[in-house]
Amino acid sequence: MSAKLMEFLKEKEQQLVEYMKSSEVQKYFRPKHIHDAVTSYIYRSAKRLRPGVLIMSCGCLGGEERIAIPAAAAVELFHTWTLVHDDIIDNDSLRRGKPTVHRLMESAGKRDLNLEGSLAEDYGRNIAILAGDIQHAWSVTFLIETTTKMGVDPYITLEIIKYMESYAIGNLIYGETVDVQMGMTDSKDTEKFSQDDVIDMLWGKTGVLYGFSALAGGMIGKGTSDINDPQVTALKDFATNCGIAFQLQDDILGITGDEKLLGKPIGSDIREGKKTTIVLESLKNANEEQKNLILNVLGNKDAGEDDVEKVKSLFHELNGIEHTKMLAQKYIQKALPKIDAVEDSKYKELLLSWADFMINRNL
Amino acid sequence: MSAKLMEFLKEKEQQLVEYMKSSEVQKYFRPKHIHDAVTSYIYRSAKRLRPGVLIMSCGCLGGEERIAIPAAAAVELFHTWTLVHDDIIDNDSLRRGKPTVHRLMESAGKRDLNLEGSLAEDYGRNIAILAGDIQHAWSVTFLIETTTKMGVDPYITLEIIKYMESYAIGNLIYGETVDVQMGMTDSKDTEKFSQDDVIDMLWGKTGVLYGFSALAGGMIGKGTSDINDPQVTALKDFATNCGIAFQLQDDILGITGDEKLLGKPIGSDIREGKKTTIVLESLKNANEEQKNLILNVLGNKDAGEDDVEKVKSLFHELNGIEHTKMLAQKYIQKALPKIDAVEDSKYKELLLSWADFMINRNL
Repeated sequence: MSAKLMEFLKEKEQQLVEYMKSSEVQKYFRPKHIHDAVTSYIYRSAKRLRPGVLIMSCGCLGGEERIAIPAAAAVELFHTWTLVHDDIIDNDSLRRGKPTVHRLMESAGKRDLNLEGSLAEDYGRNIAILAGDIQHAWSVTFLIETTTKMGVDPYITLEIIKYMESYAIGNLIYGETVDVQMGMTDSKDTEKFSQDDVIDMLWGKTGVLYGFSALAGGMIGKGTSDINDPQVTALKDFATNCGIAFQLQDDILGITGDEKLLGKPIGSDIREGKKTTIVLESLKNANEEQKNLILNVLGNKDAGEDDVEKVKSLFHELNGIEHTKMLAQKYIQKALPKIDAVEDSKYKELLLSWADFMINRNL
Repeated sequence: MSAKLMEFLKEKEQQLVEYMKSSEVQKYFRPKHIHDAVTSYIYRSAKRLRPGVLIMSCGCLGGEERIAIPAAAAVELFHTWTLVHDDIIDNDSLRRGKPTVHRLMESAGKRDLNLEGSLAEDYGRNIAILAGDIQHAWSVTFLIETTTKMGVDPYITLEIIKYMESYAIGNLIYGETVDVQMGMTDSKDTEKFSQDDVIDMLWGKTGVLYGFSALAGGMIGKGTSDINDPQVTALKDFATNCGIAFQLQDDILGITGDEKLLGKPIGSDIREGKKTTIVLESLKNANEEQKNLILNVLGNKDAGEDDVEKVKSLFHELNGIEHTKMLAQKYIQKALPKIDAVEDSKYKELLLSWADFMINRNL
């Protein structure tokens, strides 16, 4: 990541966290377990890329950074509730290096309510569902502050909320649902899905919220309530395509990345049977024997180190990795010309550095 | 229920359902399982009391019924997502006489995705979590239509959304969480909780959303963005207190009601160990022997018909039922004078009939 972009994100993160911490809405987060569950992820160290894109997009179209802060907090909270519910759905135990909300609340139930076993597990999940619901609502109240605290035209704010709560959430949950369905489909049936299915899912799960961030920032910066404004649309398309490239790169790192940098074992995508464009392309180019090997190891939680290594080699050999790199490049190439619609500025430069990071990152 | 009120609610229900059915937002409910899950409860027959209160409150302060319809749809959807998530939390199988969303989706997973056993159960729960999330968002988009479709001042709409997404949801989830914690506390420890704890929980789970319905309708009807307007506040307090009385009456019907009318076995509150003001008052007045009997049967899923009958008799004998009737009456008496702040009209009459129904209903 370029030094300038890193510095910008660090500075914005500080302002963002300060703004979230001073929110008076928090007095309604009761009882204590709910308060702890709602606030646990947001103060953990993170890159804050979505709020960053929102503020850069605001600057790109001539707005002060300051007036975009509430909306930046909104998109961070919106992202957060999707993580909390997603972690329940995937039954994950770690998020940002610490326990997930449902695990935290399982422990809280044991500690404070003397719950045991599956009752504590149920309690943890129940509180996490409700905590995500509150974060969702908190996100909407932050958007409202764009008008009530920053003086932005209320029609702009209403259009942004409407977009978030219809188009963005609908497509996000579409992506999440397809991901759930893919995850529950036997690895042997991986070829039921096409490359387009996978990319559609990545678009919904990640592209759409990056697109929303750019759109909201753009509308606030330009002071327009026109959701179809050509510059706003250009920024939205730019960010959406970068989001897809980011997820493709994520799948590549899941096979080729550095375990220490990523904080997860490299074989895990293979053992979990994750259905990626890498897998689909490799299967397409495999002979019968290679195909059998891949399908036998994929989704096998107890697969040995040797077998996982063999499959990794096949992903290289059968063009799965190269093909996915090319796809990611394609989406960045689709993104870049969009930004020509916007005049040169330090914010445009930052957005271009961000696009570069989204595909060249190693963590 | 008075004939006039019944007729009013029937007519509004029709308009409400028509309005919801014509919502263009539904195109974002994808894939099919999500669409089915999101729309399953809302078209089942129901009393629609919250939207009714909202529209009557709008009329009370001089607004046309028509302009309150989008907000009425919003409060219905808001109520609905809390039911969907609540049903997951309570692991209930029936809602409005048909399967709950997570059960419906468990069946859909078996039928369409060949899932089996606990995998199908997980799938049902996961889709239900996401469906509730979309309903929450749909509710917000309906509120926005108060301005974009009915021409209401955008500052009024923003204040209403803010109230729903901070005060109302915060207190609702507070009530829900306390309910979860009470439910997971051993029946033997029922006396850990006070009557105030129970009423606080009922206020959060039910009173607050009725209060919100009246507040939103009042603001739209009067055309004010002042959340503290005295007439709006009066309507809000009126409806909140009626909501508490409704829940107290619900607990009474759970012991004394007609199984056929209620559609649930009368002993179930006792076998589930529900912690009500009936139980608390009875325990307070019980001698050691009576107390032991009650605490032994309470929360015992396998309790025999005889024991349940004995506990029911004790609830009468030890003043639990009478005391709770008196409490419900107290909240209605607290509610009624509030409405003096509002001029006489057919809507005021309807609200008074509604208050009467809330406490004198037998189903």
